[in-house]
Amino acid sequence: MRTARKTTAFFIVISTAWCAVAARGDEGMWLFSDPPGKMLAQRHGFELSREWLDNLQRASVRFNLGGSGSFVSGDGLVMTNHHVGFDSIQKLSTSQRDYITTGFYAKTPDEELPCHDLELNVLASIEDVTERVEAAVPPGSEPEEAHKARLAAMNTIEKESLDTTGLRSDVVALYHGGLYHLYRFKKYTDVRLVFAPEQDIAFFGGDPDNFTFPRYDLDVCFFRVWEDGKPAKIEHFLKWSKTGAREEEVVFISGHPGRTNRLNTVAHLEFLRDRALPERLDELRRGEVLVSAYGERLAENARRAKRDLYGFANARKAQLGALAGLQDPAILACKRADEATLRSAVLADRALATSCGAAWDKIAAALAAWDGIYQPHRLLEDPTVFNCALFPHARTLVRLAEESAKPNAERLREYRESNLASLEQSLFSEAPIHKDLETIKLADWLARLVEKLGADDELVVQILAGKSPAVRAEELVRSTRLDDPAVRRELAEGGQKAIDASDDPMILLARLVDARARELRAEFERKVEEPMQQAYGEIAKARFALAGKDVYPDATFTLRLSVGVIRGYDEGGMRIPAWTTIGGAYDYAAARDNQPPFRLPESWIDRRDRLDPQTPMNFVSTNDIIGGNSGSPVVNRAGEVVGLVFDGNIQSLVWGFVFDEEVARAVSVDCRAIDAALRDVYDAAELAAELGRGRTD
Amino acid sequence: MRTARKTTAFFIVISTAWCAVAARGDEGMWLFSDPPGKMLAQRHGFELSREWLDNLQRASVRFNLGGSGSFVSGDGLVMTNHHVGFDSIQKLSTSQRDYITTGFYAKTPDEELPCHDLELNVLASIEDVTERVEAAVPPGSEPEEAHKARLAAMNTIEKESLDTTGLRSDVVALYHGGLYHLYRFKKYTDVRLVFAPEQDIAFFGGDPDNFTFPRYDLDVCFFRVWEDGKPAKIEHFLKWSKTGAREEEVVFISGHPGRTNRLNTVAHLEFLRDRALPERLDELRRGEVLVSAYGERLAENARRAKRDLYGFANARKAQLGALAGLQDPAILACKRADEATLRSAVLADRALATSCGAAWDKIAAALAAWDGIYQPHRLLEDPTVFNCALFPHARTLVRLAEESAKPNAERLREYRESNLASLEQSLFSEAPIHKDLETIKLADWLARLVEKLGADDELVVQILAGKSPAVRAEELVRSTRLDDPAVRRELAEGGQKAIDASDDPMILLARLVDARARELRAEFERKVEEPMQQAYGEIAKARFALAGKDVYPDATFTLRLSVGVIRGYDEGGMRIPAWTTIGGAYDYAAARDNQPPFRLPESWIDRRDRLDPQTPMNFVSTNDIIGGNSGSPVVNRAGEVVGLVFDGNIQSLVWGFVFDEEVARAVSVDCRAIDAALRDVYDAAELAAELGRGRTD
Repeated sequence: MRTARKTTAFFIVISTAWCAVAARGDEGMWLFSDPPGKMLAQRHGFELSREWLDNLQRASVRFNLGGSGSFVSGDGLVMTNHHVGFDSIQKLSTSQRDYITTGFYAKTPDEELPCHDLELNVLASIEDVTERVEAAVPPGSEPEEAHKARLAAMNTIEKESLDTTGLRSDVVALYHGGLYHLYRFKKYTDVRLVFAPEQDIAFFGGDPDNFTFPRYDLDVCFFRVWEDGKPAKIEHFLKWSKTGAREEEVVFISGHPGRTNRLNTVAHLEFLRDRALPERLDELRRGEVLVSAYGERLAENARRAKRDLYGFANARKAQLGALAGLQDPAILACKRADEATLRSAVLADRALATSCGAAWDKIAAALAAWDGIYQPHRLLEDPTVFNCALFPHARTLVRLAEESAKPNAERLREYRESNLASLEQSLFSEAPIHKDLETIKLADWLARLVEKLGADDELVVQILAGKSPAVRAEELVRSTRLDDPAVRRELAEGGQKAIDASDDPMILLARLVDARARELRAEFERKVEEPMQQAYGEIAKARFALAGKDVYPDATFTLRLSVGVIRGYDEGGMRIPAWTTIGGAYDYAAARDNQPPFRLPESWIDRRDRLDPQTPMNFVSTNDIIGGNSGSPVVNRAGEVVGLVFDGNIQSLVWGFVFDEEVARAVSVDCRAIDAALRDVYDAAELAAELGRGRTD
Repeated sequence: MRTARKTTAFFIVISTAWCAVAARGDEGMWLFSDPPGKMLAQRHGFELSREWLDNLQRASVRFNLGGSGSFVSGDGLVMTNHHVGFDSIQKLSTSQRDYITTGFYAKTPDEELPCHDLELNVLASIEDVTERVEAAVPPGSEPEEAHKARLAAMNTIEKESLDTTGLRSDVVALYHGGLYHLYRFKKYTDVRLVFAPEQDIAFFGGDPDNFTFPRYDLDVCFFRVWEDGKPAKIEHFLKWSKTGAREEEVVFISGHPGRTNRLNTVAHLEFLRDRALPERLDELRRGEVLVSAYGERLAENARRAKRDLYGFANARKAQLGALAGLQDPAILACKRADEATLRSAVLADRALATSCGAAWDKIAAALAAWDGIYQPHRLLEDPTVFNCALFPHARTLVRLAEESAKPNAERLREYRESNLASLEQSLFSEAPIHKDLETIKLADWLARLVEKLGADDELVVQILAGKSPAVRAEELVRSTRLDDPAVRRELAEGGQKAIDASDDPMILLARLVDARARELRAEFERKVEEPMQQAYGEIAKARFALAGKDVYPDATFTLRLSVGVIRGYDEGGMRIPAWTTIGGAYDYAAARDNQPPFRLPESWIDRRDRLDPQTPMNFVSTNDIIGGNSGSPVVNRAGEVVGLVFDGNIQSLVWGFVFDEEVARAVSVDCRAIDAALRDVYDAAELAAELGRGRTD
């Protein structure tokens, strides 16, 4: 259940009473700058201290591709999910040594494997810059001007902060534009793989069991951050609980939920239901079938496609669950009732009626504009859609040359000064690029251009150059040299002159597409993004005026605190206990003939006798989480690790729109299973001993 | 590569010179009533005799679900592909005896397994009824009236023929409406399974190798038709070749190509490219992911979903190839040139200009109307879209009651008198219906209704009854009793009164949907089908006037003769020989670690020593075929079976639009591989000995 920029489950066969305007039970993805101290004291008798919160914040780690983690030793050891580390582990693997299948363990630091392009961030500080951002936008300015002014202010604030502090600095819009906060991060780019189990136990149960409970997954892996050629010395890290947690115990999750849409207007939810999610699901199924067919052809293909296949299937299941929620008439009816209540309150207050009475209509108008350019904008501008490595690299090189020549304030966001180091880490990555897989993906993208923009579209005709999508993709991928990182570096360093002189076909393609892509982006910003940001900002201010700031903002892939209790639930008349056990994993596999995806790895079969079958394996809690929270630590009142979030159950997949804790749950690996597996299955007692230990210096 | 109502391949990486107005090389799916005698004599030195042709016609068998076959003994033995028999074999299987996996062989007639709902047809005669059908349509009548009059004439002709001859009688529109022929069939409904190999060898190479060559598939199975409780005595059957065929030998294929679109207008091809094929592919991928995810959960699920999964994946690969062809600018450019030539010739002739000058614009207008109702018409009226068993049964019962009360001439086509027996065989089938699989399929259909018709559509709101698609599907499937064939029979026999009195939720759903579905069908017939049929009829007559009747009609799932030679081809600079061998199959599997889908079954591993590795396994020929031809016999000049068509190579997948024999090929099982496998792998010497043998009486 990973990934920042995606919402989240599957069929919700349990019907619940959804209506409620205020936060329910343990609902809330709270800002570390505005924690729910009063609620914690009242509801859980827990007195939140600044020190406790600070340590948790600084021990929390963000994985920039979309996931969470935490420092679990003073020597830079980072714990996250195997599925969060998947991308990095896959990039370190080859046909000869496939660490996804075999697992990996570095007994000593010099055996640790440097990742190709992994960046980890640790939140150092939060500053409210709302006034400065808003002051930059001239009142009454046209959307285009307003958008430019806002981005210029953000780029400038970030650059100043980077220059002053040396920290990665990002301005984040909260409440879809109600507040702007400057987040400063300590950044780690020398990250090394320490330990990963076999995928067969990390993702035991595979796609069928993804987003379900009971579960039996050891979805964990460990990295280490290095500085100056040595393991980094870390002041803030999490202690390791020896005893784990108990039923009904309060637990905290600190992580980076990617995106929720709980504050969306009804029109916006309808847009997701009717347009965005169905189209996205068609894309995901298309990708899943494409790479699955490629993978079936050869064992090495299957290895190469494994990460993609997991990504497509995981997102497909998550988005199906989200769509199922929006297709439930009861949920939409409640959203409508909530919105009607808020709008009435706004209209009843003259000042609010003036400042934000028109916000809902503005959003509806922006959505209509979005609808009009939906496919071209997505296909030509959205990098997630290209679904390959070579064309995005070409796009980045072409734009990097052009944007670098502009003053920082005028650049496209991703090329702003403060982001260049991160961008270059990815652009110059030495991770392998498989040209055969690139070819089928590019062919699919070209075919989609024909389908969605039309075979007679002038740009499409130019892109295909008289050939079929498959033939054109084959020649583009065969002839490009961008798979070589040295070639990409040379082009990046050569600037506009090098790009102008390049006859690499992928560069030529990126240049051909760029004018139209930029136009679409500008149109999107002018007609969709800016008006929506303004209107949501107005609605947020109305909420603050009417209900105070007890409303937490929707998830934004920034650090949040969630609170819950460990608790089972009832499903179809059965009680689902809060915990599963290691012994249960063996029984579950045996009942399925130990066949994939229910096959335990050899190591677990061999070491069965050493493991106590009663050891807790996975557990559920009522914490409010979403995709992006994967890899977050679960800590107790003492701030000790008791678990590791890796999933939500099927009933949680509507949490993108509405929280409910009757049956929806976060799913975590128990700290005792991690400890037992390291010691008794993987002969990794040193690593187990390091968990929660201070610096060794 | 089965199935009548679907076009056909994948990525065409070979570019060819497509332009040519006349038939190329061995192009042609010839009517048995208008065989290419002159071409055969000139090109292949073969003198076609009426007797030779008659025997081949009467030995050819149509599988009504979409496939071909042939009588190969005087005792009613029918040969077809395993993938054509798949549906019947699957329906005879249970979790305890899975004949798809294990294969099946009845050593004696009383061990043969009666199929649940298989109907086989043998073409007895062809009669041209064009004049009578056309005379029934009043000149200058409105489309609705014209359509009704034409259907009434067809229903009546068929009923008269059935009453007179006792034979199944279908009026078929050729050249998309240029000619109408009455086809009379001898019908067999007591069909029993005799032999099927394991799917691992029948579909060796699985989806990756589907539509490719070289291949190593034993894609064969045998049924027997019974009459009066005994194996039927058959006069016309095919002899079996002892020696097989040689390179460059001329061979004939007699079978039932499902659908081609070679005579389509450019606007119609563009409609397929831009609307029909992309939407169909989204549906297919959606179905593939849905049943694949269901199958992964449990071995028994995988067994239940196997036929569906094959069907979706096979069609997906075929349609992707077809779409790739239409997305090749070179192919469309040639189609445009051909059309321009024909239109100029029509406009240059005053009579033709008057009678058919407007036909192309009429077709474009009809396509625009189709576009306007595309999704509602598909989702509410097209039975292939429901993708489940229970709702179509309910629909059939509801309509059967209503249509049976009307005079035959006024009924919907599928409820005409002459079709009722076939319809009832399917409606009362005792094949198992799995409610869990039905539930997820129905939920998916309901979700698609929300997506495509809109959540606020009045009918959709009524269908969902306030619930989410998944919850609604679960309660509908749980409560219906239509999974019991006795319940269906009772409702059918009870007529309108029984339907009106039924509170079965699936019947209620079918009744709820029916008014709108019928409206959409009527609108489709009036605005799309009838104008297109008229316009294509006009174009066909222009072709006849300009070029004579040497133009064969597009495929219509009726019996056709195709002619070709056995010949290898060049691909990527390599020569692909015409044959593979049995020894090659072992090498190919070993090179892929004998892992699925490249795993040879135990029987083949055990009996390796008995087999001559040089035995020919599969071969390619230049015969013009398409989906629906699967299972067709390949015969030599002497009319003896030398092979069994089961596929086309990847390059043949554009044959739906344009034939080319440079590299595109039909793929067949060699008769010698069938003989060797029966004798040496399956201990089925009796069956091998029966092949080509006359009646035993």
